[in-house]
Amino acid sequence: MQPNGIITFLTDFGDADGFVGIMKGVILSINAQAKVVDISNSLPPQDIEAGALVLHNSYKYFPKGTIHVAVVDPGVGSDRRILVVQTKNYFFIAPDNQILKHIFYNNETFTVVEVLNKTYFLDEISRTFHGRDIFAPVAAHLSLGVPVSKFGPEVTDFERGEISQPVILAKKIIGKIVHIDKFGNLITNISADLVNKKLLSISAGLTSLPGLVDSYADVGLGKPLAIIGSSGFVEISVRNGNAGEQLSLQRGETVQIEFN
Amino acid sequence: MQPNGIITFLTDFGDADGFVGIMKGVILSINAQAKVVDISNSLPPQDIEAGALVLHNSYKYFPKGTIHVAVVDPGVGSDRRILVVQTKNYFFIAPDNQILKHIFYNNETFTVVEVLNKTYFLDEISRTFHGRDIFAPVAAHLSLGVPVSKFGPEVTDFERGEISQPVILAKKIIGKIVHIDKFGNLITNISADLVNKKLLSISAGLTSLPGLVDSYADVGLGKPLAIIGSSGFVEISVRNGNAGEQLSLQRGETVQIEFN
Amino acid sequence: MQPNGIITFLTDFGDADGFVGIMKGVILSINAQAKVVDISNSLPPQDIEAGALVLHNSYKYFPKGTIHVAVVDPGVGSDRRILVVQTKNYFFIAPDNQILKHIFYNNETFTVVEVLNKTYFLDEISRTFHGRDIFAPVAAHLSLGVPVSKFGPEVTDFERGEISQPVILAKKIIGKIVHIDKFGNLITNISADLVNKKLLSISAGLTSLPGLVDSYADVGLGKPLAIIGSSGFVEISVRNGNAGEQLSLQRGETVQIEFN
Repeated sequence: MQPNGIITFLTDFGDADGFVGIMKGVILSINAQAKVVDISNSLPPQDIEAGALVLHNSYKYFPKGTIHVAVVDPGVGSDRRILVVQTKNYFFIAPDNQILKHIFYNNETFTVVEVLNKTYFLDEISRTFHGRDIFAPVAAHLSLGVPVSKFGPEVTDFERGEISQPVILAKKIIGKIVHIDKFGNLITNISADLVNKKLLSISAGLTSLPGLVDSYADVGLGKPLAIIGSSGFVEISVRNGNAGEQLSLQRGETVQIEFN
Repeated sequence: MQPNGIITFLTDFGDADGFVGIMKGVILSINAQAKVVDISNSLPPQDIEAGALVLHNSYKYFPKGTIHVAVVDPGVGSDRRILVVQTKNYFFIAPDNQILKHIFYNNETFTVVEVLNKTYFLDEISRTFHGRDIFAPVAAHLSLGVPVSKFGPEVTDFERGEISQPVILAKKIIGKIVHIDKFGNLITNISADLVNKKLLSISAGLTSLPGLVDSYADVGLGKPLAIIGSSGFVEISVRNGNAGEQLSLQRGETVQIEFN
Repeated sequence: MQPNGIITFLTDFGDADGFVGIMKGVILSINAQAKVVDISNSLPPQDIEAGALVLHNSYKYFPKGTIHVAVVDPGVGSDRRILVVQTKNYFFIAPDNQILKHIFYNNETFTVVEVLNKTYFLDEISRTFHGRDIFAPVAAHLSLGVPVSKFGPEVTDFERGEISQPVILAKKIIGKIVHIDKFGNLITNISADLVNKKLLSISAGLTSLPGLVDSYADVGLGKPLAIIGSSGFVEISVRNGNAGEQLSLQRGETVQIEFN
């Protein structure tokens, strides 16, 4: 696989302070032809779990050879490692803090390298902004065709992390809310293939739903519903409303499905 | 008219969840040369009226042949239709929900097609994210030169919508606030050509103003004023302040102009 | 120096109303090959001081020949001037309101021109959106190679502004907080070369710190610390927390360093 010149960003840097723009400047200074695409720079500060999930939902929609840079990095400046990962179709650059856990889980084969070769860093390395000083220049050099092996030694003791799985019983599935999106939709870890749309009931907090619908429009305005969301998991939503606020549900809370 | 390779996005998807980045990935997977420009992805959730107005203010500043993708889509997954529209200078892709009403109003001739040809969709269509599964791939194929007629049959019974017009009386104009921008400026539906800058008074809520000014700097800091805004309509502002908050005025409220 | 086709934006326009997208449309209509990169469009409204600092931290990470457009412009529509500035490595377009003060301070030689030549403006100039009508088209023409001198006469009486400097005493430095970033880090005007990391104590408000640390990880979660930040100045932070909120400190407040 060759890099295709596309570099994506997934960070918690926000857009007020210029951090993301600076990283783009660094990249364009090294590879003027690179095309940077923002997946999100508005992750909740230091929320590795949210970053891992957004990356999981996004990366495979990019063309083969895309370089995904994920910087949610509360350990910046400590001795936490920085990884370059090459899977069959993509490259990833991220701290060794489990933000890539879905990538490791989804891919059968991949190479993991610890980024140590300062040839590919900026000359001065700050204590607080490795996005600028290490992640961006490494991504730029990678986009120019520098092989993954040049950035450092292969490692096997990186943090794989764990993917939260629902508990599956004879007539019941006990899952949880793993993400709340900007519309307030509550995304669970219960995948579509586990549920039968006709014969179930769904409960979360004080809300109980009689089954899955095919479209938001199947219920009245402001009413709650359950639906298979765009990433292939059961979601609880409120039509034209915000389920998180309206149903007072948080990430981590239990969602239970009972088969009749 | 040929597409020029530029595709714009106007959505309420925000930037926290990666929705917009995913759509860019889909487009680049089909047309690696496409150039995507965000008009806004921070429209108030499901606010079709705001989307229609921002599109109206924006689309004509792009080069001929630009493809504008507008996805404010509370009806996603229902049987609401998706339209491709070709005007003299631009292409538009949007749900059939009046978000294009100003486009229909501003253009004398245009072609409207219902998007039905699944050849140009992603293979799997989710119930909740047609931006990814339909809008983005259709835009990408359009940018490669696929003729509008290939996406589906021409239709004439689309939703034209209505443009809110002020009431014009002998010595008075009764309009309303149609948009509040991020600075808190109150944009009305009273166009510049309806008003004479010397001989009028303007009132909205509890605020009364003696006429139009030429510049924010014509009044003191923190003082209200009326001015012809950048889209050619009367706006009520507060110099270096937020008129919406300071004057407690909302979208939809009446603005009255009296000629002396 | 020739322009390299890259144009950056630094504004307080936000992303809800399409202002930034419109400016990109104007640029692409004049130079279809231009590459626009957002440094930030989320500066606090009309906060020239924040804009000046973010620009200072960002501009030099872009390749030589980049055009930086900075529009924080409370004086829009008044007789405030618009400047094009050429330094050894970059171009800048901004209102004459001190947003470029660090640029003037950092560069030994530069040329400053007042933008007056309407040939390079849009045909119609609004009273409230010179970003669209003047800044964007001037940037686009500049990116095509139009010499700076074509935009108007050289001026020397522009607003240089003042860079806030700490007071340096025999055993004490009295500085202040000049910026609070999105993580709540408190950036001071005390540069790294003024402090000795072993032999000092740092106080701000009710917080007193025993010296500088090398990494956030050197203190416990939720604890305050002082560190040399990414722009080379002393910063006060809270590990995995928001120092601005937790320590109740604002921009402008005093930070005092005592040498033992």
